[in-house]
Amino acid sequence: MTVRIVVTGGTFDKEYNELTGALRFNRTHVADMLERGRCKLDVAVDVLMMIDSLDMTQADRGTIVAACANCVDSRIVITHGTDTMVETAAALAAGVHGKTIVLTGAMVPYAFGSSDGLFNLGSALSFVQALPPGVYVAMNGRCFAWDNVRKNRDAGIFEALG
Amino acid sequence: MTVRIVVTGGTFDKEYNELTGALRFNRTHVADMLERGRCKLDVAVDVLMMIDSLDMTQADRGTIVAACANCVDSRIVITHGTDTMVETAAALAAGVHGKTIVLTGAMVPYAFGSSDGLFNLGSALSFVQALPPGVYVAMNGRCFAWDNVRKNRDAGIFEALG
Amino acid sequence: MTVRIVVTGGTFDKEYNELTGALRFNRTHVADMLERGRCKLDVAVDVLMMIDSLDMTQADRGTIVAACANCVDSRIVITHGTDTMVETAAALAAGVHGKTIVLTGAMVPYAFGSSDGLFNLGSALSFVQALPPGVYVAMNGRCFAWDNVRKNRDAGIFEALG
Amino acid sequence: MTVRIVVTGGTFDKEYNELTGALRFNRTHVADMLERGRCKLDVAVDVLMMIDSLDMTQADRGTIVAACANCVDSRIVITHGTDTMVETAAALAAGVHGKTIVLTGAMVPYAFGSSDGLFNLGSALSFVQALPPGVYVAMNGRCFAWDNVRKNRDAGIFEALG
Repeated sequence: MTVRIVVTGGTFDKEYNELTGALRFNRTHVADMLERGRCKLDVAVDVLMMIDSLDMTQADRGTIVAACANCVDSRIVITHGTDTMVETAAALAAGVHGKTIVLTGAMVPYAFGSSDGLFNLGSALSFVQALPPGVYVAMNGRCFAWDNVRKNRDAGIFEALG
Repeated sequence: MTVRIVVTGGTFDKEYNELTGALRFNRTHVADMLERGRCKLDVAVDVLMMIDSLDMTQADRGTIVAACANCVDSRIVITHGTDTMVETAAALAAGVHGKTIVLTGAMVPYAFGSSDGLFNLGSALSFVQALPPGVYVAMNGRCFAWDNVRKNRDAGIFEALG
Repeated sequence: MTVRIVVTGGTFDKEYNELTGALRFNRTHVADMLERGRCKLDVAVDVLMMIDSLDMTQADRGTIVAACANCVDSRIVITHGTDTMVETAAALAAGVHGKTIVLTGAMVPYAFGSSDGLFNLGSALSFVQALPPGVYVAMNGRCFAWDNVRKNRDAGIFEALG
Repeated sequence: MTVRIVVTGGTFDKEYNELTGALRFNRTHVADMLERGRCKLDVAVDVLMMIDSLDMTQADRGTIVAACANCVDSRIVITHGTDTMVETAAALAAGVHGKTIVLTGAMVPYAFGSSDGLFNLGSALSFVQALPPGVYVAMNGRCFAWDNVRKNRDAGIFEALG
């Protein structure tokens, strides 16, 4: 089984720019993370975009949906900014069928020592292997169906609706 | 759902002793790892023992089996040294029924910057939620049934039999 | 000998705010860094302010100069943002006499795994013990007299004038 | 000014061997540490040996003394295991004259997240620039003349004699 990893950016991949003192996107850290995790799963990584999910447009979401619908793999992990992860999950649920898709991200960039990213990536790659077709959000040890999750921005956590 | 985490030691928890220059067990790092992963799953952690799995006796395995059989939780993650993880998995398969048990560990101690531990813990906590009752080994992104896995010590990886 | 460490903020102490995704100042990391370095030198830490050096006013510089002039210690390390470190060094040279003062900082926040902060702090605490009275800037292994240094912002390095 | 860095191994460079679970020497981490510290000092690195200082023979010490005596540089940092650092310092004091030589090491390997190595390297590279000819031991923020230092193995610290 090959798991496709679709990279879209998000906190996961934010870096510190030494020259400007600002956070920025440069290259993805997913390959480093897989190496750190000594991941022996067969994966294929596509860097689709490197953006903050607050800047993600409907066109960008269309690109993600198309990439997931058109790839040969039926198990897909998407790394994504947390702020609009749920919106992208909804777009995927509408546009892709018969595949297991798990979105994940990080509350703290992987480049920070204290990042949750490696934990979340290990989690998402596991849920995607074990769950039936559908679209899910896996964050911080929990996994939610796409239509039963929201980001509580005040608390900085993902939680079930109602 | 509460996931019980049973700590037995292993590479996961090895530390560097500054006074002697040797590796040793001191306290478990599992709580630190859950905090790093910002784990929002409901977990209960039991530190059953803190030993190298090469030193694990049949009596120790009996203790682990009893702890898993007797606890109220039906989803259990066990942190364990890699060298005899498969033997403990077999003991659990013989002695515990109707529960989902996932053994995990690390190739490199969590206290090392380059540890795979956080990735594996995120993975094990996910497989344990999604898989049906049974005993499994989850390492480096893959999950094996207890009777279809071995540690290839030359390569330092877990692999399916045959 | 006691070395006084005057904390003013700067990149050294920037943290990632999980709720907003922005960098911010919270608490200083200097105590953590001294612990990591297992620093056995007798030090006294004063947190004078926690600001980006681009936001530092002449009043702030006056506060720093007064703190250095008035303290009992004759060897002082100042942690400072890199952008205006040289300006503060000049203010100190004009306002404090007979003391060895070493300003240092970091190109990358200590909270990032890849920070140069620990290296620079070890360096500054060493130069301050060994150099005669005067005001110096110690960054990335080099030490400059206050009137022979500038930050080259394009290259992100400190260098001697002319 | 070029500072010569002579690598002899020691805790600094110990790594975890994933296959055996033991600590070992492989390659030196000094280049990584200089990069992390964004060191802009002109340095030349010689890897003379990669050994535990408890295994260091008089012949090894002779090799180190000869390397320091014969190199063109007059400012030398030696990375060294802590257990016999003081003995090597004495050999250097007897055999090399007119040069500033600073021995340093680490209580915890650099490959561990909690290592003091980067702090000590920044410190040693600074003392070596600022101190007059002589042989010194720089550890954990302090610098000792070669004939006024011992390792207190019970406490895990270097301290002055008497």
